[in-house]
Amino acid sequence: MSTSTLPHAFPPDVMAQLREVAEVDPDLVVEDFHAPRAREALAEAEVLVTGWGCPPVDASVLARAPRLRGILHAAGTVKSLVTEACWERGIWVSSAATANALPVAEYTLGMILITGKGLFTQRDTNWTAPGAQIGGIIEGIGNHGRRIGVVGASRIGRRVIELLRPFDFEVSLADPYVDAAEAAALGVRRRQLHGPDGLFATSDVVTVHAPEVPGTRHLVGRAELALMPDRAVLINTARGSLVDTRALIEELRTERISAVLDVTDPEPLPADSPLRSLPNVRLTPHLAGSQGNEIARLGLVVVEELRRVRAGIPLAHPVDRSGLSRAA
Amino acid sequence: MSTSTLPHAFPPDVMAQLREVAEVDPDLVVEDFHAPRAREALAEAEVLVTGWGCPPVDASVLARAPRLRGILHAAGTVKSLVTEACWERGIWVSSAATANALPVAEYTLGMILITGKGLFTQRDTNWTAPGAQIGGIIEGIGNHGRRIGVVGASRIGRRVIELLRPFDFEVSLADPYVDAAEAAALGVRRRQLHGPDGLFATSDVVTVHAPEVPGTRHLVGRAELALMPDRAVLINTARGSLVDTRALIEELRTERISAVLDVTDPEPLPADSPLRSLPNVRLTPHLAGSQGNEIARLGLVVVEELRRVRAGIPLAHPVDRSGLSRAA
Repeated sequence: MSTSTLPHAFPPDVMAQLREVAEVDPDLVVEDFHAPRAREALAEAEVLVTGWGCPPVDASVLARAPRLRGILHAAGTVKSLVTEACWERGIWVSSAATANALPVAEYTLGMILITGKGLFTQRDTNWTAPGAQIGGIIEGIGNHGRRIGVVGASRIGRRVIELLRPFDFEVSLADPYVDAAEAAALGVRRRQLHGPDGLFATSDVVTVHAPEVPGTRHLVGRAELALMPDRAVLINTARGSLVDTRALIEELRTERISAVLDVTDPEPLPADSPLRSLPNVRLTPHLAGSQGNEIARLGLVVVEELRRVRAGIPLAHPVDRSGLSRAA
Repeated sequence: MSTSTLPHAFPPDVMAQLREVAEVDPDLVVEDFHAPRAREALAEAEVLVTGWGCPPVDASVLARAPRLRGILHAAGTVKSLVTEACWERGIWVSSAATANALPVAEYTLGMILITGKGLFTQRDTNWTAPGAQIGGIIEGIGNHGRRIGVVGASRIGRRVIELLRPFDFEVSLADPYVDAAEAAALGVRRRQLHGPDGLFATSDVVTVHAPEVPGTRHLVGRAELALMPDRAVLINTARGSLVDTRALIEELRTERISAVLDVTDPEPLPADSPLRSLPNVRLTPHLAGSQGNEIARLGLVVVEELRRVRAGIPLAHPVDRSGLSRAA
């Protein structure tokens, strides 16, 4: 992983726990598997503990790691590091993607609740201005019976659905891989994306939790945005490319809908992007995922997995090779 | 109730349900019990359906309402309308305070989650500026293990505690009426307000849910604010008078802590109040409580209570006369 990641994923208390379950050199952080110290360590390593900034574990790396059995990734997707060669060699892989999903779902819930009060859009600026009405009835806001549309039953999408349960929301889900029985088990109404009864047309909030794969590029385009009801809010914490930026800017210019964007396309946005100045847009700088103290939770998952490996218990978060093509 | 409240508490679909369970004149909204139409209606009324803007139901009103048995309040506290004379007469009272607690708790949860990401304070302004670092590790934020201090196990405080359960928070409660067994049942750690192990010193967020009674004026003063850790957030959705505004401004000027204030003292704030311009303050205009579509939920509670009365089932939300002195 990158040197800068280590102290966040493994702060002293987590590193101490790691050292209880594994022989680990806390001073060795590998950013390049071909550096001399990395080569030495690979010759002995049974497990790689990886994180953001880990280079690919390809055939040339595996050739130098005769004892390697597993990879424990203290982050989300393993796509950038786990190669075909790892699967062919039978290396087991575990990722902290489930733990990494928590903060994104929490950010999403927070934004749903707050935008339901009309905050984060142009309106609150006026409300808090001197002379604004205080304590009167405000029309058109409220979280009672608000319709939430979740795009994608990914780990994050599923966690969002879970977190939405204590509230008086009506939750819909669009996901081509979820059938009626599974939707019922999740407690959501299954919808297509389009049409008058589709997710975009029937949701006061659309929150995107689909993976970035070829089929999801511009999943939210001009047609989808036009279907959204007045005052609806689009939340994107997934990847910027899932939304057609040009179409979004056009729709936002009408001030008919609002957007909360933690990710953008491109990222970062150009300095003169209208998304930076439109009053009905809230930008956050790709921080919905694990940040600050949330990164240590990823290290804790690795420690837990190592405890299981040592005890001969199956991994709690194994990565399934076959599911990777449709996952983030 | 006030004429402006009626269409929000009883929009057409809720009014239709009300008319199924009660004989009600949907065109009669009483803002003054001594108006001629009000007097006529009082002569026959068995139940008063009340809401924001309802004048006191005092002895002079009761004298004109010989058949009156109960009051169903489509709002929170009944303190301004239910008089001693009502209790003496044996009038039963139900309030929608539990339903009214929901949106306040939801606003609070939303703010906890979002401020945990460092948003709503001066920091996010910089982060979203052109050229700001995107996607790097941000220190000092995160909702993993964040310590939340709840002041007051009111309906709202209890709902906040419930809503905080799915997250990796450590939740403390300060309430002089909650004993150790009850705190354990709530799943919170009981703390005093003060001292190095007190709620203010050990919480990254302090959220105030105490009632406005003589003993709670300036509950949060200079000493309490000084105890709060660096980067802590104070959330006030209760009443402005619970916080010493002058002391809060002084502490906020150091930018050591932040505040989210839905209520202020005075309210509204003067145009030149520093709370309006300090970068580490987020003001919202007393909207955490039922607003917009959330007001209809209060009408629905009245309908449900009427169904129970008609079926001879005890009220779901009776107001307890003895508890009023320590409630909001």
